[in-house]
Amino acid sequence: MKIYGDIQSGNCYKVKLLTSILDIDHEWIEVDILANETQTKEFLEKNPNGKIPLLELDDGRCISESNAILNYLSEGSDLSSEDAFEKAKILQWQFFEQYSHEPYIAVARFISKYLGLPDDRKDEYKSKQAGGHKALKVMEGQLSKTDYLVSSRISISDISLYGYTHVANDGGFDLSEYSAIQIWINRIQSHENYVGMA
Amino acid sequence: MKIYGDIQSGNCYKVKLLTSILDIDHEWIEVDILANETQTKEFLEKNPNGKIPLLELDDGRCISESNAILNYLSEGSDLSSEDAFEKAKILQWQFFEQYSHEPYIAVARFISKYLGLPDDRKDEYKSKQAGGHKALKVMEGQLSKTDYLVSSRISISDISLYGYTHVANDGGFDLSEYSAIQIWINRIQSHENYVGMA
Repeated sequence: MKIYGDIQSGNCYKVKLLTSILDIDHEWIEVDILANETQTKEFLEKNPNGKIPLLELDDGRCISESNAILNYLSEGSDLSSEDAFEKAKILQWQFFEQYSHEPYIAVARFISKYLGLPDDRKDEYKSKQAGGHKALKVMEGQLSKTDYLVSSRISISDISLYGYTHVANDGGFDLSEYSAIQIWINRIQSHENYVGMA
Repeated sequence: MKIYGDIQSGNCYKVKLLTSILDIDHEWIEVDILANETQTKEFLEKNPNGKIPLLELDDGRCISESNAILNYLSEGSDLSSEDAFEKAKILQWQFFEQYSHEPYIAVARFISKYLGLPDDRKDEYKSKQAGGHKALKVMEGQLSKTDYLVSSRISISDISLYGYTHVANDGGFDLSEYSAIQIWINRIQSHENYVGMA
């Protein structure tokens, strides 16, 4: 299978980290978003929404959306669950990530790290701080009670939230206020198959 | 089970529509967002993220995020799938909905319908139009090829996208440009157990 991604993008890195932890053989195809490589006719045929990461199966069928890819690749593994309630909680955290976490923490990071915090985006950058801290507080509350987001063992919901949380500092979020999140980050980084972002 | 929601919210209505189609017995507890009923101490214990819809099981355990709830409630039914690829495509559309559709179409609707399009939100309202039309074009492309988003039969991904798409006009989106979406809306509305928003 082929995975199209940008290793500096947290959404793409999530998939990279999962393939490392589960030792999934794949070809990684690096894509440059800023050079509009996701907007070519050829790419839009694979994903009409023009976004990475994108998983292309050997038969040519494609799956987009990082969290959908994580669910597909982890099916039947220890990072998924057979329990109906746990499965729902994994998805709950993944939808939380895309709606209440990524639009603040990842976008602030993008404006700062990728665009160099230009003057005309500074107000937007500042407007992302409150929502980002709200999301971190929700995570901190859960991680003060359980070692990982859904239970005492790692799941794909942890991979999903780890993607942008561990580089939240790039978006101006100081994680020193969040001790349970810091311990959780260390737990994930100590996994034997852990691979970093760059 | 109890479902906390606001029937005018597309995210909550998705859950209502699913319970109607699958004939799932439940108690609906109407919650007023604008009166901050999702921010009370009691509610935040059920969902620390302070959002509806919220599903509370008979044993008191809770699941938030509309699409996580849809997956939980539809498990094993005709609206879900046992096929790994189809399951991934259902999730793909649901994550697309939360990231590339709802933040434009639902937020424009909220500013216009709930807040009455106040002057200080007009720029934001206008800024939502391009992203909303982009999402509608992606849907139109798929629905020109298949009767429903994932296959020839209805799934929870259709429920998820239907929620805000069928009232997109409230946010200033003219659906007359999207003929495949209009036909799809009619298909869903002709379901024998269909229930409307209000």
